[in-house]
This record gives sequence, C-alpha cells and structure tokens, in this order.
Amino acid sequence: MPVIPIKEYADSDGLYGRVQQQYAHFDGITLESGVFLGPLTVAYETYGQLSPNKDNAILVLHALSGDAHVAGIDENGRLGWWDAMIGPGKGIDTNRYFVICSNCLGGCKGTTGPPSINPETSRPYGRQFPLITIGDMVRVQAMLVEHLGIERLHNVIGGSMGGMQALEWSVRFPDKVRSAVVIAATARLSPQGIAFNWVGRNAIYCDPIRCSDGSDRKDACEDTGRGLAVARMIGHITYLSEETMEAKFGRKLRLKDMDGYLYSLGENGVERGEFEVESYLRHQGSSFVQRFDEDSYIVITKAIDYFDLEKETGELSEAFKGVQAKILVISFSSDWLYPTSMSMAIVRALLKVHKDVSFIELDLPYGHDSFLVNAGIPSMTRIVRGFLQGVR
Amino acid sequence: MPVIPIKEYADSDGLYGRVQQQYAHFDGITLESGVFLGPLTVAYETYGQLSPNKDNAILVLHALSGDAHVAGIDENGRLGWWDAMIGPGKGIDTNRYFVICSNCLGGCKGTTGPPSINPETSRPYGRQFPLITIGDMVRVQAMLVEHLGIERLHNVIGGSMGGMQALEWSVRFPDKVRSAVVIAATARLSPQGIAFNWVGRNAIYCDPIRCSDGSDRKDACEDTGRGLAVARMIGHITYLSEETMEAKFGRKLRLKDMDGYLYSLGENGVERGEFEVESYLRHQGSSFVQRFDEDSYIVITKAIDYFDLEKETGELSEAFKGVQAKILVISFSSDWLYPTSMSMAIVRALLKVHKDVSFIELDLPYGHDSFLVNAGIPSMTRIVRGFLQGVR
Repeated sequence: MPVIPIKEYADSDGLYGRVQQQYAHFDGITLESGVFLGPLTVAYETYGQLSPNKDNAILVLHALSGDAHVAGIDENGRLGWWDAMIGPGKGIDTNRYFVICSNCLGGCKGTTGPPSINPETSRPYGRQFPLITIGDMVRVQAMLVEHLGIERLHNVIGGSMGGMQALEWSVRFPDKVRSAVVIAATARLSPQGIAFNWVGRNAIYCDPIRCSDGSDRKDACEDTGRGLAVARMIGHITYLSEETMEAKFGRKLRLKDMDGYLYSLGENGVERGEFEVESYLRHQGSSFVQRFDEDSYIVITKAIDYFDLEKETGELSEAFKGVQAKILVISFSSDWLYPTSMSMAIVRALLKVHKDVSFIELDLPYGHDSFLVNAGIPSMTRIVRGFLQGVR
Repeated sequence: MPVIPIKEYADSDGLYGRVQQQYAHFDGITLESGVFLGPLTVAYETYGQLSPNKDNAILVLHALSGDAHVAGIDENGRLGWWDAMIGPGKGIDTNRYFVICSNCLGGCKGTTGPPSINPETSRPYGRQFPLITIGDMVRVQAMLVEHLGIERLHNVIGGSMGGMQALEWSVRFPDKVRSAVVIAATARLSPQGIAFNWVGRNAIYCDPIRCSDGSDRKDACEDTGRGLAVARMIGHITYLSEETMEAKFGRKLRLKDMDGYLYSLGENGVERGEFEVESYLRHQGSSFVQRFDEDSYIVITKAIDYFDLEKETGELSEAFKGVQAKILVISFSSDWLYPTSMSMAIVRALLKVHKDVSFIELDLPYGHDSFLVNAGIPSMTRIVRGFLQGVR
C-alpha cells in the first residue's frame, strides 16, 4: 500500500481520512472444535457515522492476508486495502453507511491469533494456537457487532475468504444481516484449493527451525520465513490469471547477459530469478514475510480448508433454507481458483429454496484478485452501490 | 510402477520382456551456454530390432521425472513408465519398430547430471552442474542416435517436456527425423509455467542444508528432501485436472474424529493431512524424494523455463520453416498446464509455413498427465499407431 503524505491526502477526493485502530475485549469463545479460547481481543476500524436507529452498518470481511485497515490512512500513513471501494461517495459510501472492518480471528494484525500471548504460558501461542473455522471467525465478528450496539447489519461484504464469511453470516445469523455481497467465493473449498493450501503449509514446515512454541523462531535464523514466502508465491500464482501473467510479464527477462539467458543460478545455489515473473513473485513472497505471521497463515488456510456449507446437510440448498438476507453474488470470468461455476452453485442453491439472490459475472482479466485491483473498482462500484441502495 | 513377478509377466500379453539398461560414452559437449561438459554418459534402453536399412527407429522422449526405462521390466522387476504404449502389438509396436529411450541430460537416472561425478572435483556436481537447455538434451540424444548407427529416425515422440524435445528435434535436425508426435506440450513455456517451476525450486532452496557442492546433503539431515517433496506436490497439482481431483478425492477425509474434522495439526506442528487429497500428495512428494535428485529437478525445470522456440525468430512459424517431419500434435481437453490453446499455436504456426501437421484434442478428464494414465492409452494407441503407419 502506498504511503500518502497527509497534505496530499487532505486534498484528495473520496479519501476517508485518518483512522485509528480500536480494540474490543471479550472473555473468550468456545470454538467449534470444543476448545475454549480466551481472553479475546478484536482489532477493528470504523468509518462514517452510525445512524441514530443503528440501521446503516456494513461489515467488511477481509481475505486471507487482509486486516482491519480497509480504508482511509492509518497512523503510518498507509492507505486501507480496499480504500478504492470505501469512502465519501465511493461504492460503499461512508457519508451514508457506518462501515466496520475487523481483523479475523487467528490473524496477526491485532485480533487474537498465533502471535498473541497465550495466558497459560505467557508466551505467544505460535503453533499451539487452536485450529478455527470460518464459523468461529464470524461468531467473533458477531460479538464485535453486538459490542457496538448493532442488532442488525445493513450488509456484510467480502471477497475470497471474506465472501465465505459473508455466506456464513447469512446462514448462521439470518436475523442479524439484511444483505450480503459474496465476491469470488465458494460454498465449499475444492480439493484443488485444499491441495494448494496444503502445499503452502508444507513449504512453511520446511523452514530450518520448526519448533512447537513458535516464539523465537523469527530471530533464530535468517532463513526462517522462506517457507512462508514460498507459500505466498504459490498462493499468488493462483490469484492471477494466465492472461494477466502473459500481459504483465510474458517471458521478459530481468537479469540477462547480452545475448539473453544467464544460464546460471546465483551464489551458493540461491537463485536470483532471471525472469520478471520470478522477480515479481519473490518480491511478493519476501514482503509478505515482513508483514504476516507464518502460524496465522497455517491457522487461516486450515479454516478455509474446513469451509463447507454442504457438510451438515449434504445439500447446499438445505443449508440456505433459513437465509433471510438479500444476496448478491459476484464472480470474475478470469478467476480459476474460485471460478464462476462455484458462484453459480451458490446461486442455484439459493434459488432452489426461493431466496432473493442476484448474480453477475464480471468480465475482468485479473483473475481471483480482480476485486482488489484498481481497474476492477469502477464496475464493482456501480454494482455494489446499486445493490446496497436496493436493500430495504 | 508396480513390480511384476517374472512368472506373471511371462504369461502376459503385449509385455515387451526383460530389458537391460545400456550406456553410451562420449567425450563431451559444448552446451548452448558455452560451457563444456564432459565426459558424458547416456543411459538408454532399446526394444525391438533395428531393421537392416535402419529405417524403423523411434526415439521416445520422457517428461520431467521420467527415465530410460520406458517399457518391459527391468532387473528389479519394474514395469516401464509407458509400457502400456510400447510392446508387441501396442501403440508403438516393437514387432515393427526399434524403440529407443534415453535418460535426458541433467537427469539422475544414469545419464550425466548433477549426481554424476565432476571430474574436476571427484565429487558429484550437485548444484555446480551447468544449466542446460532442451536443445542440449536433444543434441545429446542425437549423439546417441548416431552412436547407434541410425541416420534418420522414423519418429520422435513424447509428452510434456518430451513433447518439447520432439519439437526441438524437428526444428534442429530436420533431416534426421521423418515424423514427430508432440503430446501435451508447448512451443514456449508460459509465465505461469515459469512461475510454478520457480516456486518449486524455491521450496527446494528452503531445505535446511543448502550447500554449494551438493554431495553429502542427503545424509546430513533427516529433513532434507522436504523441499523437493513440496516442489513435486506443486507440480502434481498442475498435472491433474480439477475434475479428476473432485472425482478422486473430493473433500473426503482420511483422518477424522467421530464427528468429522480433527481440528488439530500433528505433533510439533508437522501436519499429518486430514484430507485424502493431502495424503495423496504427501505420498507423491515423499516417494519422489526417494527416486529423484533435487539438483536434477532444478536443472531440468530451468531447461523447461528456457524453452522458447519463438525466441530466435520472434515468430514461431519462422522457427518452423525448415521442418521436414510430418507432425502430429495431441492435446487434452482437461490439461490446464499446457492447454489446447498452446497446441493450437504450434499447429497454426506449422500450417502457416505449409508443413504436414495433424492435430487432435483428446477429450480425457485426467489433466496434463492424461498421456500417462492407463485409461487414456486406448485412444492414444489408435491415433499414434495410425500416424506411425502413415509416415513414408
């Protein structure tokens, strides 16, 4: 995210302004696994004003690597991850709505997760953090919403894992959510998705120091984190379309001799990356290691793996029977990780039990990440704005 | 590959019989990079009889992880990797043709590669092995063919990296090959392909002991090889179709408690794999580590990355101008790694310069690996047999 100087920021249109992360504290929660986890802290931000009758709240749900800082600029001058969608006059208009975004349970950006201190050991949970589900994340969000005095949300909205949460909200708390926008998501993770997550976690397990407490690993060896970088790079390939990769990188070389290829690895077998796509991925991987926790990566990808709304009932439409929210499903034509067919399965199941559902496939070339790419924001804005206004 | 007891083998139809690996020795080769590599050993097997005028030879070209043992049973009772295609009366009929298969340059199955002894150090090359190209592999194969006294091959045939080699043969040695079968291949590796290979190699670089000579790593730490396993698992996901994964594994659990999920990693954070797809991939990864060398993996994937027949001329059809071979291109409808569009690009470029090319997309659900899957063999057999008979 670019750092915006305050002066420049103050002159800009549509930017929300400075935001401060806040924290809510709870005794704890009994997870779906039966394990009690507590005490709990939830990091969140809010934007706009809650209306007197508290009926204009929208909860934004982040994807795997997101955080509570969704819009405006934080104390470090950083722009929120979906600032293009959220602000005065934007797709989610903060002049009209009270927007909430919290870091998910199991995360590493302020909400209780593996880097948090385990009260039993007075050290970070690390890999001792209990495994959680998308349902657990959503129940913690519901605690936050209640804490803010809101009985019913105008909308829940999110892409990828955030879309799974939006679905889970609609199923688990039908009377607490008037509408949901489910973007680039699936109602059950596919075996291919499970496979990519599994391989990513196994790359993390390759790291030189794999200990069970997770506390001092990061300083113990300069190579630690390489596994997380590999995991992120695997993920990143699945977030981009072949088309984007071809247009953005093709077979362009970053390092080369006069004639072309270097025909060499780096020193000591540490490869430098001759192709631009390699260099790009390496940057994605190494910057991710700076900002993310590997044990959070493990816990959150496991939660995604477990996500399967069909599991209880055997049929998705059965799971949707109690849904009251008006639902908008958005997919992207170039998304091969959660392709349109997965969104269509959600839509068909909702229609089967006569729910109020709209669907659109956006013809964007940016793959799974289309909802985060600035070039995709105008079409997202039009659709989401209209949908939010249509919710009674 | 299953181990076939000799007795049972002797009773079977179509099996070639026992084969013995052979070795050819050469002084060396100046690689495309300009580096001299020598001496060279090439491991190969042959099947059937070379005709008196030496015009019935077919060279089979293996993929990334293959070897020279393509058919029959070796001294350990192991069946060749494409035995279903090669033998008396089979798609490549050893009653009619003299079939040759050699381990590729840079491999780890008898031909000179990273595990071979570097004469300069008297230790294995390891990560000091020079980087090579598909062109280098093919030139070494041409040395073997010449060594066998064959001036012109009836056919070269291979899938995936083997298909790249078949194309390279047709371009580089137009007068030495009468026909080529190019299966599930591409004329230039896509940035997505480069990206997957890069990530796989980076998983290897995560291994605890990364030293530059590569000689004693394997014994130094029980964890070594985990990176190679991750690389193989990444590759394996790309070889299967989403459809096959769904049919074969779905979301089935291998480990579970009474109610379903375990909600737990293994001891010390070493994950056991709850889902069947995870267990399958782990098996693929760990068995690969037993049979393959990580530095060969690095060298061969780099060679694949470098493969780009458009590079010299800027246009593929220009590269194909000198081709004399009759060419058959085969793609698989469910192959998302080298999809049909990539085969079509080869076909279009050949047609543009008026070459003799046939094309078929086989509607098989097994993804990139369809050419290796037994269920795909009958359709492959019909097509390849007819094509080989039609070559003058």
